[in-house]
Amino acid sequence: MSSAARRRLPRPAPSAAIGRIPIVEVGPVFEGGRWPARAVPRESVPVTATVFREGHDRVGATAVLVGPEGKVHSSRAMWPVGQGLDRWEGRVVPDAEGEWSFRVEAWADPIGTWLHEAEIKIPAGIDEDLVLATGARLFAKASSQVGVPSEARRILAAAAAALVEGKAKATDRLEAAVSTKVRDVLQDHPLREHLSTSATYPLRVVRERALVGAWYEVFPRSLGAEFHPKTGWRTGTLRTALKHLDRIAEMGFDVLYLTPIHPIGTTFRKGRNNALEAIATDPGSPYAIGSAAGGHDAIEPSLGTFDDFDALVARAQELGMEVALDLALQCSPNHPWVTEHPEWFTTRLDGTIAYAENPPKKYQDIYPLNFDNDPEGIYCEILRVLKVWMAHGVRIFRVDNPHTKPLPFWERLLNELRESDPDVLLLAEAFTRPPMMHTLALIGFHQSYNYFAWRNTKEEVEEYLADLAGPWGSVMRPALWPTTHDILTPFMQWGGQAAFVIRALLAATGAPTWGIYSGYELVENVARPGSEEQIDNEKYEFKPRDFTLETGVFMTELLGQLNSIRAAHPALRRLRNITIHPTSDAATVCFSRRVEEWESPDGKADCVIVLLSLDPQHAREGVAWLNLDALGIAPPAEPGKPALTAHDELSGTTFEWGTEVFFSLDPAGIPGHIVSVAPLG
Amino acid sequence: MSSAARRRLPRPAPSAAIGRIPIVEVGPVFEGGRWPARAVPRESVPVTATVFREGHDRVGATAVLVGPEGKVHSSRAMWPVGQGLDRWEGRVVPDAEGEWSFRVEAWADPIGTWLHEAEIKIPAGIDEDLVLATGARLFAKASSQVGVPSEARRILAAAAAALVEGKAKATDRLEAAVSTKVRDVLQDHPLREHLSTSATYPLRVVRERALVGAWYEVFPRSLGAEFHPKTGWRTGTLRTALKHLDRIAEMGFDVLYLTPIHPIGTTFRKGRNNALEAIATDPGSPYAIGSAAGGHDAIEPSLGTFDDFDALVARAQELGMEVALDLALQCSPNHPWVTEHPEWFTTRLDGTIAYAENPPKKYQDIYPLNFDNDPEGIYCEILRVLKVWMAHGVRIFRVDNPHTKPLPFWERLLNELRESDPDVLLLAEAFTRPPMMHTLALIGFHQSYNYFAWRNTKEEVEEYLADLAGPWGSVMRPALWPTTHDILTPFMQWGGQAAFVIRALLAATGAPTWGIYSGYELVENVARPGSEEQIDNEKYEFKPRDFTLETGVFMTELLGQLNSIRAAHPALRRLRNITIHPTSDAATVCFSRRVEEWESPDGKADCVIVLLSLDPQHAREGVAWLNLDALGIAPPAEPGKPALTAHDELSGTTFEWGTEVFFSLDPAGIPGHIVSVAPLG
Repeated sequence: MSSAARRRLPRPAPSAAIGRIPIVEVGPVFEGGRWPARAVPRESVPVTATVFREGHDRVGATAVLVGPEGKVHSSRAMWPVGQGLDRWEGRVVPDAEGEWSFRVEAWADPIGTWLHEAEIKIPAGIDEDLVLATGARLFAKASSQVGVPSEARRILAAAAAALVEGKAKATDRLEAAVSTKVRDVLQDHPLREHLSTSATYPLRVVRERALVGAWYEVFPRSLGAEFHPKTGWRTGTLRTALKHLDRIAEMGFDVLYLTPIHPIGTTFRKGRNNALEAIATDPGSPYAIGSAAGGHDAIEPSLGTFDDFDALVARAQELGMEVALDLALQCSPNHPWVTEHPEWFTTRLDGTIAYAENPPKKYQDIYPLNFDNDPEGIYCEILRVLKVWMAHGVRIFRVDNPHTKPLPFWERLLNELRESDPDVLLLAEAFTRPPMMHTLALIGFHQSYNYFAWRNTKEEVEEYLADLAGPWGSVMRPALWPTTHDILTPFMQWGGQAAFVIRALLAATGAPTWGIYSGYELVENVARPGSEEQIDNEKYEFKPRDFTLETGVFMTELLGQLNSIRAAHPALRRLRNITIHPTSDAATVCFSRRVEEWESPDGKADCVIVLLSLDPQHAREGVAWLNLDALGIAPPAEPGKPALTAHDELSGTTFEWGTEVFFSLDPAGIPGHIVSVAPLG
Repeated sequence: MSSAARRRLPRPAPSAAIGRIPIVEVGPVFEGGRWPARAVPRESVPVTATVFREGHDRVGATAVLVGPEGKVHSSRAMWPVGQGLDRWEGRVVPDAEGEWSFRVEAWADPIGTWLHEAEIKIPAGIDEDLVLATGARLFAKASSQVGVPSEARRILAAAAAALVEGKAKATDRLEAAVSTKVRDVLQDHPLREHLSTSATYPLRVVRERALVGAWYEVFPRSLGAEFHPKTGWRTGTLRTALKHLDRIAEMGFDVLYLTPIHPIGTTFRKGRNNALEAIATDPGSPYAIGSAAGGHDAIEPSLGTFDDFDALVARAQELGMEVALDLALQCSPNHPWVTEHPEWFTTRLDGTIAYAENPPKKYQDIYPLNFDNDPEGIYCEILRVLKVWMAHGVRIFRVDNPHTKPLPFWERLLNELRESDPDVLLLAEAFTRPPMMHTLALIGFHQSYNYFAWRNTKEEVEEYLADLAGPWGSVMRPALWPTTHDILTPFMQWGGQAAFVIRALLAATGAPTWGIYSGYELVENVARPGSEEQIDNEKYEFKPRDFTLETGVFMTELLGQLNSIRAAHPALRRLRNITIHPTSDAATVCFSRRVEEWESPDGKADCVIVLLSLDPQHAREGVAWLNLDALGIAPPAEPGKPALTAHDELSGTTFEWGTEVFFSLDPAGIPGHIVSVAPLG
């Protein structure tokens, strides 16, 4: 797509006048269209609107998708939601990247209006001839509309004739004219009068990885680090890390996320367990960036060279993995910027550079940039730094604390990268209040960390999954991480291995992107006292791991299995397609995800049920009541009989399930099912 | 205001870029600014926004009101709502009619940021000199800002000096510099950095009567109608009606609403109690408009002439009342339009004109207009009809069933009238689903009937009053009618006189506009069986009334008293200023309304508490817990002591109330208090 085409961002142009058939409250629309809704190619986007008219006549609505070049791509019928709410919903499926847009059309449905009248009057014997003749005229009009294919045209014309010709009874004529076949044709080719149009709203489509991914986080220096009783620690390097990629790729992860690999400062370097003073052998936090060896555009010399980095990226790519790099915009006191550009920091009245503070706490190892001092200079430098890494194959950045930097900086950066490198994705690591998190997403971050780790009870999980499936979820694109190097919740600290199993299942199926921090396989669940992060945190020391331990083997296999299931099931690679099903148990959640054939990323209809106990301590039993309609499954022949074939992808067993599913889930094993749904037989 | 100025409707122009201090979710904004928020002159309009910034530094926000000519009228500080929500609220007060607009400014608050740091560091003895010197520099900067008056300038400069000069302890210096006096100056003249601006959103201001009024509804033919045993009924006329105006004006009503006065059709005329066949002496429904004597631009000959009408209007105006006329856009089969413009109706295939239907029901006395057949012709004719009545002094129309006519028709009409006759007001009588009711208001109806009559329990009333005070209430402008000629709810049918007392108190205080249908004084509460409207409905017969009966005298006096109280209390003439106070009783509501001096329509601070039992059968006792802050009253000297003087405007008695108010309300009398609030002493 040309840069000029990309620049033609559709903007809402609200019409001054209300339409003949009013359309209001169109969604997904953010701040009146100031920022676009979001999707990836072949993602089904729910479009909603309030549509109504004067009087009692029937209306219809159509969702219209407009391609990046401004031409209508597709139109699909919308359907009313609920009774008497005047709310309509439809779905559109863009199929390529770019700046798309959508609108809603509303129209009078004279055949629907007539049918409502006819179905009352004809059986009552009121005005029969008049009603049938009126219907015939409407069907004839429908059949002669522009664009109706000849077969549909024939069916509608026949319906018109059936209403008025021959000698059948009025009731039989009506029935013949409104057969299922005729209704199906009308669904695709309705007679539309008083066509009215909403404003056109923007929809940005970026590459699939923005929505879908399985991330694996490592500290490269730990991969291959060794402790020798005599010589002490030998750091892992980019070259030794490379040897660990096979194991990660074998588990099915497709994004390898590296914490910062830049030179680490020495002044006020933190020691083990965040100690204020480091000892000589402490490697320091990779988030204290910058030393005499360079800053954000350099590689910590002990890790290797750009050649080593290129080799790592190349090997990851061979294995089907992208490399994501941390972007932590803060400096150690030894960062080259501190001497080259002291004006980029805050100088206090006493002439010293201000370190980070949260009074009375001081973080003397970190100098925050002051973007307001030289916005242009800092912007150009950071863009240059990003381009260094982009040139070395990094197309994903995990942005550390974006909510502590000015939003206009990010918006400008994201806009410029969208023009020059639309495949570059930025993940926002902002654990803060909702308006900031929402707005970071609105201005262009492609994906967001979120509160997943703190949603643990059934009520919390059900509410959260439903939230993620709504408009804000679609803009923020959640990445679900059960733990990170900064996060080890009480649930994970106290739930044993079962907690790690439960949260892996939930993260892998709760959203299309999930992430695992290395060591998860070993159930590393001991916290530094008084904190909610790991003891002996890898941020401050080397942490080689032995995954051949029994726990490691079991968990490694489970993570691999989860990624295989995700790969096999397009329904699990979509966000907005969730249905929560009620269960009788206070700790067991049941939800399903479904894509129909026409909206499936790989053209294959798919439906998966997740039935999961959230209790790492006790076995749970109960009943889940399935909403068959949401599963696309017909009701059973008789109540109590099976309605579907349920294949448990984890255990390999297959059941026949009805609307009531009895379950027994034991945290001693895997207390959940991930079930592939198929019709009976 | 010139017509050109009116045409310069402010439109939102969302900036492409996020501001330095982000501002989102500004309100009141409807459909992204497609339609304006609403107010009347001297009405305080709550402005809300989400304002936040990166990091932990403090922010502030200002609500800016822009006059119809595009110049800033006033700016007022906003304040944060709740804790950690990033929501801000402020109020603006336009003072004249016209197309105003508003926006929100957000800014960094370096003094607030410094103060937060100083109040932690100074007591802890950290960096004292540096902190104080930094503060002095900020205060000096604040004092030298453009537009700061000299006295404020002096106070800020003194604060700067106090921080760094002399020999006082650091804690004392800090205290001196941030005295209440200094904080007050900073409230009005904050040091604002990184000033950021939201889009500008429209705010339409129309005359006071759109929001505030006391309506009284009559069927003119009943006023002075007489039955003579020998000659039968003699109709009331516009001339006899005129004699009844004194009584209505004495009660304090200021809008006299006349049901239609046009010629009434004879074909399929309805008889008493909606009988399908009328007898010769039945006068017919005034809503079946049109006969050989004329249509919507004519007066039913038996009522009188335009001269008589002019006399009625003139007398009403002398008495301080405006005349509101019904606009019921439907025709009897005898309407002149039926023969002159058959194309304005729907012609069925058999050549007959379609009457109104709701199959299988037929309404053969009514021909609905088909606006789509000749939108231009019908529009011009109806505008002509309205101008006939406007020329005869009618500036308010009560529009019957606007939701059965196309919305573009109304929007065009309302737009054109706004240009030519901005004082003309239209009240929408649309009892239908919320989207239609909301949208009628958005496209320009000035006031709306609503669901008030069906909100009877404590929960319903509390929720409804709070709703009415919100954004939709401000656009719809509710008119609260306890009964109308179409509405007699079960509550009114079965609650006796007490129900009429209760609902009158609630309607008079629940919103700035209330309405009483003649006969309310006589507690006319008998319904036609199977319906929720009065038996022997005045729509189909003459209904002279004797208000000198004991009930009539009592209720007349009560209605008059309510209007007097409303006239004396500006707080009761505002909509958005409500606070609900909890009570211990399941049937008693307590709410207050308050205007501060600067936002009061008459420049006078005012606060009123309404304490009302909703139970027409039983005496209720309990406690109301007053939110003193919402009343603008300081807490009592000690718990349990009085905090305010409460003058009951209904009984004339005066109490001293604390935060807990014990009440005993008996439906045998008046089970409510309307209390004027004043500080003690």
